[in-house]
Amino acid sequence: MGKVLVIHGPNLNLLGTREPEIYGYETLADINDMLQKQAAADGVPADFFQSNHEGDIVDTIQQAPAKGYNFIILNAGAFTHYSIAIRDAIAAINVPVIEVHLSNVHAREEFRHKSVIAPVVMGQILGFGVDSYFAAMAVVLRKIKQRLN
Amino acid sequence: MGKVLVIHGPNLNLLGTREPEIYGYETLADINDMLQKQAAADGVPADFFQSNHEGDIVDTIQQAPAKGYNFIILNAGAFTHYSIAIRDAIAAINVPVIEVHLSNVHAREEFRHKSVIAPVVMGQILGFGVDSYFAAMAVVLRKIKQRLN
Amino acid sequence: MGKVLVIHGPNLNLLGTREPEIYGYETLADINDMLQKQAAADGVPADFFQSNHEGDIVDTIQQAPAKGYNFIILNAGAFTHYSIAIRDAIAAINVPVIEVHLSNVHAREEFRHKSVIAPVVMGQILGFGVDSYFAAMAVVLRKIKQRLN
Amino acid sequence: MGKVLVIHGPNLNLLGTREPEIYGYETLADINDMLQKQAAADGVPADFFQSNHEGDIVDTIQQAPAKGYNFIILNAGAFTHYSIAIRDAIAAINVPVIEVHLSNVHAREEFRHKSVIAPVVMGQILGFGVDSYFAAMAVVLRKIKQRLN
Amino acid sequence: MGKVLVIHGPNLNLLGTREPEIYGYETLADINDMLQKQAAADGVPADFFQSNHEGDIVDTIQQAPAKGYNFIILNAGAFTHYSIAIRDAIAAINVPVIEVHLSNVHAREEFRHKSVIAPVVMGQILGFGVDSYFAAMAVVLRKIKQRLN
Amino acid sequence: MGKVLVIHGPNLNLLGTREPEIYGYETLADINDMLQKQAAADGVPADFFQSNHEGDIVDTIQQAPAKGYNFIILNAGAFTHYSIAIRDAIAAINVPVIEVHLSNVHAREEFRHKSVIAPVVMGQILGFGVDSYFAAMAVVLRKIKQRLN
Amino acid sequence: MGKVLVIHGPNLNLLGTREPEIYGYETLADINDMLQKQAAADGVPADFFQSNHEGDIVDTIQQAPAKGYNFIILNAGAFTHYSIAIRDAIAAINVPVIEVHLSNVHAREEFRHKSVIAPVVMGQILGFGVDSYFAAMAVVLRKIKQRLN
Amino acid sequence: MGKVLVIHGPNLNLLGTREPEIYGYETLADINDMLQKQAAADGVPADFFQSNHEGDIVDTIQQAPAKGYNFIILNAGAFTHYSIAIRDAIAAINVPVIEVHLSNVHAREEFRHKSVIAPVVMGQILGFGVDSYFAAMAVVLRKIKQRLN
Amino acid sequence: MGKVLVIHGPNLNLLGTREPEIYGYETLADINDMLQKQAAADGVPADFFQSNHEGDIVDTIQQAPAKGYNFIILNAGAFTHYSIAIRDAIAAINVPVIEVHLSNVHAREEFRHKSVIAPVVMGQILGFGVDSYFAAMAVVLRKIKQRLN
Amino acid sequence: MGKVLVIHGPNLNLLGTREPEIYGYETLADINDMLQKQAAADGVPADFFQSNHEGDIVDTIQQAPAKGYNFIILNAGAFTHYSIAIRDAIAAINVPVIEVHLSNVHAREEFRHKSVIAPVVMGQILGFGVDSYFAAMAVVLRKIKQRLN
Amino acid sequence: MGKVLVIHGPNLNLLGTREPEIYGYETLADINDMLQKQAAADGVPADFFQSNHEGDIVDTIQQAPAKGYNFIILNAGAFTHYSIAIRDAIAAINVPVIEVHLSNVHAREEFRHKSVIAPVVMGQILGFGVDSYFAAMAVVLRKIKQRLN
Amino acid sequence: MGKVLVIHGPNLNLLGTREPEIYGYETLADINDMLQKQAAADGVPADFFQSNHEGDIVDTIQQAPAKGYNFIILNAGAFTHYSIAIRDAIAAINVPVIEVHLSNVHAREEFRHKSVIAPVVMGQILGFGVDSYFAAMAVVLRKIKQRLN
Repeated sequence: MGKVLVIHGPNLNLLGTREPEIYGYETLADINDMLQKQAAADGVPADFFQSNHEGDIVDTIQQAPAKGYNFIILNAGAFTHYSIAIRDAIAAINVPVIEVHLSNVHAREEFRHKSVIAPVVMGQILGFGVDSYFAAMAVVLRKIKQRLN
Repeated sequence: MGKVLVIHGPNLNLLGTREPEIYGYETLADINDMLQKQAAADGVPADFFQSNHEGDIVDTIQQAPAKGYNFIILNAGAFTHYSIAIRDAIAAINVPVIEVHLSNVHAREEFRHKSVIAPVVMGQILGFGVDSYFAAMAVVLRKIKQRLN
Repeated sequence: MGKVLVIHGPNLNLLGTREPEIYGYETLADINDMLQKQAAADGVPADFFQSNHEGDIVDTIQQAPAKGYNFIILNAGAFTHYSIAIRDAIAAINVPVIEVHLSNVHAREEFRHKSVIAPVVMGQILGFGVDSYFAAMAVVLRKIKQRLN
Repeated sequence: MGKVLVIHGPNLNLLGTREPEIYGYETLADINDMLQKQAAADGVPADFFQSNHEGDIVDTIQQAPAKGYNFIILNAGAFTHYSIAIRDAIAAINVPVIEVHLSNVHAREEFRHKSVIAPVVMGQILGFGVDSYFAAMAVVLRKIKQRLN
Repeated sequence: MGKVLVIHGPNLNLLGTREPEIYGYETLADINDMLQKQAAADGVPADFFQSNHEGDIVDTIQQAPAKGYNFIILNAGAFTHYSIAIRDAIAAINVPVIEVHLSNVHAREEFRHKSVIAPVVMGQILGFGVDSYFAAMAVVLRKIKQRLN
Repeated sequence: MGKVLVIHGPNLNLLGTREPEIYGYETLADINDMLQKQAAADGVPADFFQSNHEGDIVDTIQQAPAKGYNFIILNAGAFTHYSIAIRDAIAAINVPVIEVHLSNVHAREEFRHKSVIAPVVMGQILGFGVDSYFAAMAVVLRKIKQRLN
Repeated sequence: MGKVLVIHGPNLNLLGTREPEIYGYETLADINDMLQKQAAADGVPADFFQSNHEGDIVDTIQQAPAKGYNFIILNAGAFTHYSIAIRDAIAAINVPVIEVHLSNVHAREEFRHKSVIAPVVMGQILGFGVDSYFAAMAVVLRKIKQRLN
Repeated sequence: MGKVLVIHGPNLNLLGTREPEIYGYETLADINDMLQKQAAADGVPADFFQSNHEGDIVDTIQQAPAKGYNFIILNAGAFTHYSIAIRDAIAAINVPVIEVHLSNVHAREEFRHKSVIAPVVMGQILGFGVDSYFAAMAVVLRKIKQRLN
Repeated sequence: MGKVLVIHGPNLNLLGTREPEIYGYETLADINDMLQKQAAADGVPADFFQSNHEGDIVDTIQQAPAKGYNFIILNAGAFTHYSIAIRDAIAAINVPVIEVHLSNVHAREEFRHKSVIAPVVMGQILGFGVDSYFAAMAVVLRKIKQRLN
Repeated sequence: MGKVLVIHGPNLNLLGTREPEIYGYETLADINDMLQKQAAADGVPADFFQSNHEGDIVDTIQQAPAKGYNFIILNAGAFTHYSIAIRDAIAAINVPVIEVHLSNVHAREEFRHKSVIAPVVMGQILGFGVDSYFAAMAVVLRKIKQRLN
Repeated sequence: MGKVLVIHGPNLNLLGTREPEIYGYETLADINDMLQKQAAADGVPADFFQSNHEGDIVDTIQQAPAKGYNFIILNAGAFTHYSIAIRDAIAAINVPVIEVHLSNVHAREEFRHKSVIAPVVMGQILGFGVDSYFAAMAVVLRKIKQRLN
Repeated sequence: MGKVLVIHGPNLNLLGTREPEIYGYETLADINDMLQKQAAADGVPADFFQSNHEGDIVDTIQQAPAKGYNFIILNAGAFTHYSIAIRDAIAAINVPVIEVHLSNVHAREEFRHKSVIAPVVMGQILGFGVDSYFAAMAVVLRKIKQRLN
């Protein structure tokens, strides 16, 4: 069986209002709702967490194994580019993490091209807007099915 | 309606035999077969092309619009890291391109962290092995449905 | 009409005791008091916030529009040099931000020469000690008057 | 008592016509007129100098002490980024210099982020258009008052 | 007299479970217990603090002088490499800080070779596993004795 | 006597359709036609070659001396920035090469500022659109006349 | 109608005597004479200016529009590599500038590969000796004809 | 038993005519002839391949195992410095590759100091002119003998 | 049982006279005397060696295993920053090495921040003056005790 | 016979008043007087020139051969670090130039370590205060004598 | 006639015991013995020298011409990467030097990729273990034969 | 009174034979003889030392104060560019050191532009061949006279 945790980093609570030409018009609630349904269709429970506080995200990642999560979908937002604390938390647990970005970070400012968490995640999906999350959940659900078989 | 072209770059014809601890045990034929079925399930035709020749890949990308392809899924292999010719071909056509990698390139040698095509593709999916292709096709099929609605 | 929010970043609560040869002998309360009076003289209300927690500063910036602030004066302290989360928060709101530093950061260590928030603020004032804040408030009050006219 | 010298560097004589979307629509005469009045209101005389010639600016800075100036407001324009001769002139005199820029140089080309004079000036004000000069003069007038008290 | 504060940074609460081939099998409680006894043998009280939150560590360092600590032993974990806020807090207080790492950071990833706090601490001890803490406490106790004599 | 070879690199076959705001609206046939006439007016034959294949361009350059060409006009397109093979081919033959670009590459992305062939060509002409080719041919025809005299 | 200004930067007054193996044996008078005739053949007046003083070149560029010049041909000599003042003057006027060099700067010292004016000129012609000027004038005359038609 | 494949990269077909002061006066046929005899003297068959096309070299390397080659001697020419596709082909097969250069690349231009294939070959021999090939073949023949014993 | 070798690099023979504000007032004899007693208290013999000659230090490290040393305490002085020969000697033997510095090298010149031996030593202790040696010996004695138990 | 020209760059007219702890207490007149006498003692005439204007220094260097100078002693001041125009003027004449600095530029700011004129001068003398000039004149007088013999 | 000197740098005296997975199991005596026989078979005398002292290697290289050596085979070990003194000694004599390494240095740490002696040696052979020496001697013997003919 | 020590670094014993087009035709004995006489003329004794061994030079510098030397003239040869041990020895003694080079190192290879000892010497003289030593001695003798007066 599988259970998924979706973590959103700083400023993602502003989705739908913040620079919509970059990040799109859906709100975070819309995205979570979409993912909830996508996972539920396969009978997989999904929980959601957003914070602007690096420490809270580290805490949440650390507690994921004890809470029974098998996969984490993580859009670390700005922390992607400098939070070695989050990187170390990912490396310290046994739960695979999928890194997600709404925008194509490689088509933006130079400093967004570098992800300090990329070397310790399972994989990256970026640039498809809300569909980046959709694809991440699709991979998670497929991996869960593969384990069941 | 939609029609998809999947392009594989240099050395991907060796899949299944080349460094399987990095690239996995499926052959390229296995992957193409999987993608064919995944697309066909949504009534979308998919074609496939592999080459070790940069010029052939440039030619193939250039001809995609005239051949009616709406999406390209591209694993440019080693060309990812230096072929500005492929980058320019992508920028020159009106067909969105999804960049795919089997391995998590950010967990490998430094020179594999840089993609010269990343700034001109729609998005990137990497690190999930064969499931990187699966997720790319899932995004394509979803985008096609969104356009139909 | 106008309303101003002044935000002080990490370690600025120590002002007056911390390395006074660099930062001066006034306390943070002295500075806030001076700014309160300067703004009040033009009939403009000003509020003040200090935190050593990056997440709290991000939260505070995000909430500024809803709370009716028209300008933010921000001395991000050490976060100036690495907090992309604060940068993104500034870029995400519609309130102009004035970046302030007590010391001339360009006459200090190399790493203090780089401000990751500079590209998204309205302007910078630095090096005048407490008068850096005074000048920032003077600009704010002038911009408010210009809008009224 | 105080007396102020305002120095404008290369191409600032074109203000009002040169790339007004970056530098604004006021002419240099407008700016000097505004500053003259602002200083006169506090009984402080102000003089003005503009040149496209680095050597003339060096000469002018060198002569400032003998001419009785207590403060220099300097927008070195393009010389900001490479004129070590101007930097050395500033370091050689005992008159504090305030560096001013109309635009937010940190939001423009990479080479404009570096000021070779920044380490030897008292402080920097940039990004507020004509109000950068206003704020600089406000700081000067305040410093003059503080010395009188 | 002397009193010691031991501060552990992010992810150190996972010690004993997190990548034990790098960090060893002792838990944080084991280490604290060992240090408590080592200090007590010399009649020196020791307190302990762990947090995944940068702001909490800044707060704790700031309050150390008022709480009567004469020495701080600090393993800043991932914050070692980017937290200028912690660096500034150390520089702002008058209490000497000893930087400790369990692993030999210079034998690991490139980004772990750089410590932004190193220039403001008294000294560094790293690479001896739990014995890094032991040696740091040994130095502290020796310095306390030297002051008594 | 003189005979000229004009070589166009990858994606130049798309001229007129590819990003016309950068590369203009003339097709490659238009350009070749213009050059043919310009050369013919001076009684100089001109031949034309385009390829997306680096190897074909190397082959063509190598064969130029044997085919009696006295000058090569080369727009290497994307290969300009990385094809050391083309550079070595130019260096290996005794025929002067004129490097041409339609756009001002120095006003575009950083990676286009570097030409690996520039050190071995006779000279460079860039930024005038189709007139870059015209000017190159004008230089060639003038050099041919100078040799005749 | 058209009118052309040709500007020569520092040390170009020494042409014919200075390092002739690099710069050739023609004097500056020879070059100006050639260009005068070339322009006159198309009924286009051309004027000439040389200076070793950066400020004089900035002044001259600034005054070009008022004096009715439609094109500037500029060999900035050593200023090419560091005069941001000249760059800003070019960007500030509405007259297209053609950058010219006698030698192939890319085959010389590393510091000559960088032109700080290149991003703001219309185009570059370099490496053909005196014929670099000839080609620049040819482009100018052609552009003037195109505008007339 | 053993069988050897010798691969020559771009522009090596010009040997004997191309910059002989760097590459010597022997033709490629001379070199192949010498190597054929050297191998035949030990009863080892040797085949030869030259191409200016990167893709053809990748194809040839890929097919080497199926064709029964036990060793490859490779002078990749200009591709040495950027062809990651060739690097990946070498890494993908089980046949040891010896990298050869005629000239001492470390005594030439900076960009020739870097070999992207060096980390995946068995070893390098360079700088001895034609004798670089001779020494490579000598190593191959010795390794073959060692395996027989 | 255990036996310790203490090696001091170049210029450490000047201790007590050389820049005492950086290195302190104790002589090398004082330090050796202190360490001798510290080791003897635990029944562990310690020997001492100083040289300004890199080769002598390499020789001494190489011979350590044969002479029965179980630990080396090494202050390589200036050699720390460039002697790869010493690094290789450390890597070549099976005796753990503890790197020691009197001063906090990270608070000094940039070139002192890099230790070429750090990646191959067991750990580093620096910045405590003579107490750096004391702490190193304390670690050694503790490790010896741990092995006995 | 010999005749010497001594050129002083920007801000050297302030000598004796400008940062005397770096540049000493002698005025420029003192130095010129000393050099005049030193040269006269050997019957060699010496002339002197100072300017804050780069163009004037370029002009002066260019005219040196026609005025019969056999040696130039040049303290280019701040221009040392960026004036390629002065560098090119030196390279363009046949008169050997001796580069002089009062202070040890290598013990000061990083940007003062680089001299753009160093590669084209005969030699450098720096760090001896006024005696740098003395030594330069001593070399000149010796070279003149050597030529006479 | 010919006579060969083989020089081994620091730590090569440990061969056979030092990190044999990198450097192999033969001792230095084994290698010298092999080379002696290989040279003797062609009637060429060979001598051998090993030292951990850079100065001794410089001395030995300097004396090679006077002692009648026609070739030097040099494995400079760690000195390869920083000993400019050895580089200068090689450049100062007229005896060709062949640089040898046992391991493929390009497949190891970054700092081993750079050889400061490479630009002044005749050629390099590396990566073949003991066979690197064999191939170097083979080249030497061949060159000696070529000179005799 | 004064006494001078002249130290020559590695390979300078070869002077007169080593690359004379760079270093000149005088032998080291010639230079020492010249300096001996130059010093003796002022009644100042001078001693001389040459070594290819870094450690011997460090030893010699360390012993200079005890032996009564007031000045050291040092041509460190290749050690100039990397011997931090020599740098530290210079910094550790109270005897001023004059750095000398025969050639203009700034007109040679990039790595010769950097002197690691420059920041701790009194001054530098380079590029005048043997006259570099002459000028250094002239400065020494002048400084000695100044002290006497």
